[in-house]
Amino acid sequence: MSARLMRLTGALQAVDADVYVASQRPNQLYFVAAAEPVSDLPPVAYVLLAPPDLVIVPGAPFFFACRDHLPGVELASTEVGGSPLGADATDALVAEIRRRGYRRVVLDAVSRETEAALRKSLPGVTLTLDPAFGPRLRRPKEPGELETIRAAAAIADLGMVAAFRAAQEPRGRGVSGRDIAAEATATMLRAGAEEASLQVAVGPATAYMGTGDWVYAPRRLLQPGDMLLVDMAIKFHGYLGDQTRTVVVGDGTPEQIELIRTVQAAYRATVAAMRPGATSAELYAITTDLLEQRGWRRYFPHHISHGLGLGGDLPRVSATSDDVLQVGDTLSCEPGVYIPGLGGARFENMLYLGPDGIEELTQSPVDPVVGG
Amino acid sequence: MSARLMRLTGALQAVDADVYVASQRPNQLYFVAAAEPVSDLPPVAYVLLAPPDLVIVPGAPFFFACRDHLPGVELASTEVGGSPLGADATDALVAEIRRRGYRRVVLDAVSRETEAALRKSLPGVTLTLDPAFGPRLRRPKEPGELETIRAAAAIADLGMVAAFRAAQEPRGRGVSGRDIAAEATATMLRAGAEEASLQVAVGPATAYMGTGDWVYAPRRLLQPGDMLLVDMAIKFHGYLGDQTRTVVVGDGTPEQIELIRTVQAAYRATVAAMRPGATSAELYAITTDLLEQRGWRRYFPHHISHGLGLGGDLPRVSATSDDVLQVGDTLSCEPGVYIPGLGGARFENMLYLGPDGIEELTQSPVDPVVGG
Repeated sequence: MSARLMRLTGALQAVDADVYVASQRPNQLYFVAAAEPVSDLPPVAYVLLAPPDLVIVPGAPFFFACRDHLPGVELASTEVGGSPLGADATDALVAEIRRRGYRRVVLDAVSRETEAALRKSLPGVTLTLDPAFGPRLRRPKEPGELETIRAAAAIADLGMVAAFRAAQEPRGRGVSGRDIAAEATATMLRAGAEEASLQVAVGPATAYMGTGDWVYAPRRLLQPGDMLLVDMAIKFHGYLGDQTRTVVVGDGTPEQIELIRTVQAAYRATVAAMRPGATSAELYAITTDLLEQRGWRRYFPHHISHGLGLGGDLPRVSATSDDVLQVGDTLSCEPGVYIPGLGGARFENMLYLGPDGIEELTQSPVDPVVGG
Repeated sequence: MSARLMRLTGALQAVDADVYVASQRPNQLYFVAAAEPVSDLPPVAYVLLAPPDLVIVPGAPFFFACRDHLPGVELASTEVGGSPLGADATDALVAEIRRRGYRRVVLDAVSRETEAALRKSLPGVTLTLDPAFGPRLRRPKEPGELETIRAAAAIADLGMVAAFRAAQEPRGRGVSGRDIAAEATATMLRAGAEEASLQVAVGPATAYMGTGDWVYAPRRLLQPGDMLLVDMAIKFHGYLGDQTRTVVVGDGTPEQIELIRTVQAAYRATVAAMRPGATSAELYAITTDLLEQRGWRRYFPHHISHGLGLGGDLPRVSATSDDVLQVGDTLSCEPGVYIPGLGGARFENMLYLGPDGIEELTQSPVDPVVGG
């Protein structure tokens, strides 16, 4: 049994559960890949994990894809509801839980309708929804995962360089956030990412990048004196690549320069304190104390760090997280300050906390130049 | 009052409600844009619509963006929870509903946690969740919307042409689905889309495109004799652009050709019957009867049509829809057949049902050639 499945077995015993049901793709991919050498699991509805048993409830019409590509894996029938392609995956899940006699089930996350249907159909079964169960098990990164994350970081580097090359190139009508996104996206898809998207904020919109990834006013053309914030999210073999840079086009005002330098200083101070045992609270306070001194605490609304991996990873460094850093963590560090009337700046690198300390996986220029 | 807000007023009266609370972006954008000439509404938590009253609950930190860009719109305070950037948007929504004395509220959709919090905090208020309330009101497309949808269709055309040009160009290592996606995405972002993504399936993966938009095995290189299926989704000023083409690389086998021709025939027969008053059931049966004759009914697992607009639009033509076509509808038609061991084919165009009948908004080649 793989190390992953052994950790899962221990975690199920610790909460006195028979089986872990994964409906979220990161949790599915992680444990199926531990049992079979697959990186391209078709989209499936549920994976039942009760090591050594691993049963896939494919959900029509992916029964055939699973059968073709996962020859060693047990597949639940999709004929519960009648025709093979018409069966409801949740009905198939209920049938499998009954058939196997599972009484205590941990499930990652489902819609309220599905939860209600499961509770109604499985009256004698203890059903616990725990969204963090999978992310906790996926937290310590294995050597092979670290190599994939390094590659994702390198593709993100290429994208960031392409973004600022696009921002720098003269065009007749000027350059918009969409133009920058187009070139960087194409570069990262060509370089190996299976998904790539950019969030590019230009000018006043940089002040509203504090939450969410929706880009406000993507058609605004870059002007001398504008702030320019480029964030991104890519997937490489399922693993997240992510970084953010902020510049001012041309010389910039002293206030703009101070904004960018302050965010970079918060990043450096926070990363310098990242070591095994460092708590979310202490790391978060390093950034907030530094911003408080400048009177900008209220303009920092989000987390400092999220884990890096297949999705929804730990640890988190934020106002509400209790996480403690440990060797093997891969995480972001991304302080940001967003001031209406001035602009917004965020600086984000990908990091690895190894046995020898923290390492920056991101290698793109800290201060790319536009219009200089 | 705009036509949109007048329809909203009538719809609220019909269900005896005081206010419509929109939490989903398409519903927000549609009604805010009816009151203010904005196409770039910042991301906000809730919009309370009780015409002529329109109140935005921005959710920190977008208070400032709303204040700057929507000067005529009333903003709910975000200081309910304490600091201006720390307030919880749902607390602010509760405070606004109480302050204004609304007793009967229609809400589009929220998480189960938010729904429970609202019911607990508003014990004397009748709260109805109705996800279709907004899409019903957004259904008849106005002339300005139709022009935007035509432009989205034209950008999608450019993307499809770029996709097949990329598939056709010789490369040293061959061409993968990712390569095709990279070029088409860049083309559509350059052409004006604010978002663009492609789903490209190559070879056996075309057989598994029946549901979802996840691309299976994106790294497979295109080979002579492969099926190639290219689907896409773009946004232009918030409006969806969407089309699908399927080809075989080179000559193809008789079975592959028959698969592609059968899907195109189902498309043509179904579109030919699209007129005001046509029911989902009758249109759906045209495709399924045609596929039944060929023995392929079981390999068609999805809807025929969805509405085109800001998102989640009506009408739908599917096995379960009761919708009836009406003048002013914009919709897709996208039959598909996915046969394990042979491959999958889908054909999708964007359509407008005008006073003079159905019109194809999509203009890209029906049979693009690769490796011919």
